[in-house]
Amino acid sequence: MPEISKRGLELPASPIRKLSPLADAAKARGVKVYHLNIGQPDIHTPAEGLAALKNIDRRILEYTPSDGLKEVREKFAGYYKRGGMDVTPDEIVVTTGGSEAILFAFLACLDPDDEVMMPEPGYANYISFAQQAGAKVVPIPTSIENGFALPRIAEFEKYITPRTRALMLCNPNNPTGYLYSRQELVQIGEMVRRHDLFLISDEVYREFCYSPEPYTSALELTGCEQNVVMVDSVSKRYSECGIRIGMLVTRNKEVHSAVMKIAQARLCPPLVGQLVAAASTDAPESYMKAIYDEYIARRDFLIEGLNKIPGVYSPTPQGAFYTMARLPVDDADKFCAWLLTDFQHKGATVMMAPGSGFYADPDRGRNEVRIAYVLNRQDIAAALDILSHAIENYRP
Amino acid sequence: MPEISKRGLELPASPIRKLSPLADAAKARGVKVYHLNIGQPDIHTPAEGLAALKNIDRRILEYTPSDGLKEVREKFAGYYKRGGMDVTPDEIVVTTGGSEAILFAFLACLDPDDEVMMPEPGYANYISFAQQAGAKVVPIPTSIENGFALPRIAEFEKYITPRTRALMLCNPNNPTGYLYSRQELVQIGEMVRRHDLFLISDEVYREFCYSPEPYTSALELTGCEQNVVMVDSVSKRYSECGIRIGMLVTRNKEVHSAVMKIAQARLCPPLVGQLVAAASTDAPESYMKAIYDEYIARRDFLIEGLNKIPGVYSPTPQGAFYTMARLPVDDADKFCAWLLTDFQHKGATVMMAPGSGFYADPDRGRNEVRIAYVLNRQDIAAALDILSHAIENYRP
Repeated sequence: MPEISKRGLELPASPIRKLSPLADAAKARGVKVYHLNIGQPDIHTPAEGLAALKNIDRRILEYTPSDGLKEVREKFAGYYKRGGMDVTPDEIVVTTGGSEAILFAFLACLDPDDEVMMPEPGYANYISFAQQAGAKVVPIPTSIENGFALPRIAEFEKYITPRTRALMLCNPNNPTGYLYSRQELVQIGEMVRRHDLFLISDEVYREFCYSPEPYTSALELTGCEQNVVMVDSVSKRYSECGIRIGMLVTRNKEVHSAVMKIAQARLCPPLVGQLVAAASTDAPESYMKAIYDEYIARRDFLIEGLNKIPGVYSPTPQGAFYTMARLPVDDADKFCAWLLTDFQHKGATVMMAPGSGFYADPDRGRNEVRIAYVLNRQDIAAALDILSHAIENYRP
Repeated sequence: MPEISKRGLELPASPIRKLSPLADAAKARGVKVYHLNIGQPDIHTPAEGLAALKNIDRRILEYTPSDGLKEVREKFAGYYKRGGMDVTPDEIVVTTGGSEAILFAFLACLDPDDEVMMPEPGYANYISFAQQAGAKVVPIPTSIENGFALPRIAEFEKYITPRTRALMLCNPNNPTGYLYSRQELVQIGEMVRRHDLFLISDEVYREFCYSPEPYTSALELTGCEQNVVMVDSVSKRYSECGIRIGMLVTRNKEVHSAVMKIAQARLCPPLVGQLVAAASTDAPESYMKAIYDEYIARRDFLIEGLNKIPGVYSPTPQGAFYTMARLPVDDADKFCAWLLTDFQHKGATVMMAPGSGFYADPDRGRNEVRIAYVLNRQDIAAALDILSHAIENYRP
């Protein structure tokens, strides 16, 4: 029997992979499961996007150009322009979700055995994409005590080796909700320029920033224009995760050219999704404002509720729709499994993503969980009630 | 300025990349261009698929499971069952086009510096996907003289080294149209089992076989069930290339598990495409028969016409909708460019894919072109007329 690749064996499994069958079993027993574990918002897709879907009138659902339809890239460039970013359609490659943009960035910027730095806790799938590209993730530790802020640059630079090629940032951050300040980003821009590193900036949560300070995109940094590869997606912005449309934006022509070769090999991003995504950029300000207000209310409600539970601590995230919370348990992996196998309160339980999955070192984040606030407040209230009772009754 | 990856520099560009701007320029001058270079059929998507698109009635276009919706995998399993292949929904991973299935297979089966054998001329993008996975392609030469048949197994085995992990086949073949016989496949099955190699079988053209012999899928081979990874797609079968739905089918649980980890990292295949593809499996026999009859008529018309042009030779392909033809020119790259820049006949010209792009060794296939017969017979007639005049008037 042939052996699978070492890579195939070593690729990290999803943080919730072991829990999903337990959740299914709980549901089969009639237990309601509140999903705090996933980033699938309950917000509806904008009417403009849904109408575009209804109005597709083609006899052949055919290939598009590998970097996406020109009119779609023009709509995306218009979106950036309204946000104060000067991006031309030729600097945009439409991808199959932000996920593909990350993989493309790694393949174009990193060779096997190269190192990419990333703050941790971090988005677990970055590690998978890096391993797919044969590259190695170097975690930059951040901690819940100071709200997951970045270390100072001098501290950062200690992790740079001759094999370091890139820094991967997610801003605002998944899983921590941390929002990088303009000052932090300016310093990071100087650092990547000084060390000739790529700055791969995942900005898919850019519309969800709750700080009064204006959002700073890596595309706005001056002096490091050639270093920046920006990753974006319509998934969260317009609650259309399933259409799989993202984009890679770079002003670096060599990166663009390498990305195009990779993009051409996979032929094209989804046609239907492109049409829906382009139309969604016409969603009115009122749509975006309603979602924004809803998330900020959910966040405040969740964080206040979490911090009221004895032994639980969560900083107040300034962006995205996640928080990393510390629980009074030794092993959140076991606690999260127990919630699904052995606990219920009024016929219901909660599913959360154990923190360990967001760290390269499996010994870190053992008492942390990631909670997504993608449910309405009534459901968050029910979930908080369950969590509170569960912690009180948990005897590991 | 940071340097892009060595991989990014070395990745092969699409065989027609240099020609596309020339074709655009020709069109801008008012010259009509017949596209014999691409695999985008002019056949319409089945009514069942288009109706499914119209009938999507969801408020949220959300994520699906990473291996695709269960009901979609069930429809695909039903399709295989009707074709005599016993495949369960759990052996299917829905992918973003057959392209992603190829990349997943390589990532799961090959480590950096491993070797994958593939007959050449071959599909150019296999080389790109192999390089993305850090692996090396070992070409197995075939030639136009014997219709691109495979070498004998003893000849094949000379290419096997300790680093060889897989054999990649495309059956029926793109670009040659070669259809592997049951006997060839049985021998290949024995060879991969004997050497513990994976057999990655790209069967996206399975519905387009013009030989009276029944088609043999790698999934039907006995004794090498653990070696086979089958790649498939609805793109060509239902003329819906733009929805980006393919699938990877394997009975090897280790491969399936590794592929699932890769699939989870990219979250899910496109939701809308899955719904369209599943509905398309209900296309009636009459739809498939009409397409089949049309392609066989186009093939016969094209091959007869090609072989009538002095100095041109094309074998008669037994499958897919491509042929590799030999032209009486020294350098088909230059000839194909000249057709777009300096030639027209009755205000029109043709675009073809130069053969060199389908060979690892750029010195092979210099006088060959790949021609796709995805145009109607009237257009093929016009294109043949142009090609005949062009060859007569070409003075390199």
